[in-house]
Amino acid sequence: MTSENGSVETNIIYIGKKVTMSYVLAVITQFNQGAESVVIKARGKTISKAVDVSEIVKNKFVNTLRVEKINISTEEITTENNTPMKVSAIEIILAK
Amino acid sequence: MTSENGSVETNIIYIGKKVTMSYVLAVITQFNQGAESVVIKARGKTISKAVDVSEIVKNKFVNTLRVEKINISTEEITTENNTPMKVSAIEIILAK
Repeated sequence: MTSENGSVETNIIYIGKKVTMSYVLAVITQFNQGAESVVIKARGKTISKAVDVSEIVKNKFVNTLRVEKINISTEEITTENNTPMKVSAIEIILAK
Repeated sequence: MTSENGSVETNIIYIGKKVTMSYVLAVITQFNQGAESVVIKARGKTISKAVDVSEIVKNKFVNTLRVEKINISTEEITTENNTPMKVSAIEIILAK
């Protein structure tokens, strides 16, 4: 549940295809394990979910949190048939 | 094409159901008409499209632009059957 990618050292949670609540739990777990900040990362259509996760964690679970910084960027990914494609990405940094 | 909601005075572009490129054009038009900054607003699933619009305008059309500020928030909307529902919202401020 605490996500395979988002290790405790780096405190990064990557948003994917799971339901919103599993990422909410992953973020809360990081903070409960002593993280001072957590980075929520998403690309393409999951960007909306990343914003949902931040808002839910902030408003319903950890009221003392604040959004420290939001970065948006463009990343180049390689699709299944090896053609490069550009996707938008977001990085939301939540801090205690 | 330049959007009925996003008037020149306030320079706000609301992202809705149209294709990404029509919002890209709407933002570019605002800057061409002399706007110093444009606010791109979106709610729910259109948040990803708002990030796409900002990135496309910034990277492909107006290289001198920068993202001045990104705000995320939760808004309460009323659904068709009059029940209140919370949705995430984003506000991306692009400036010359």
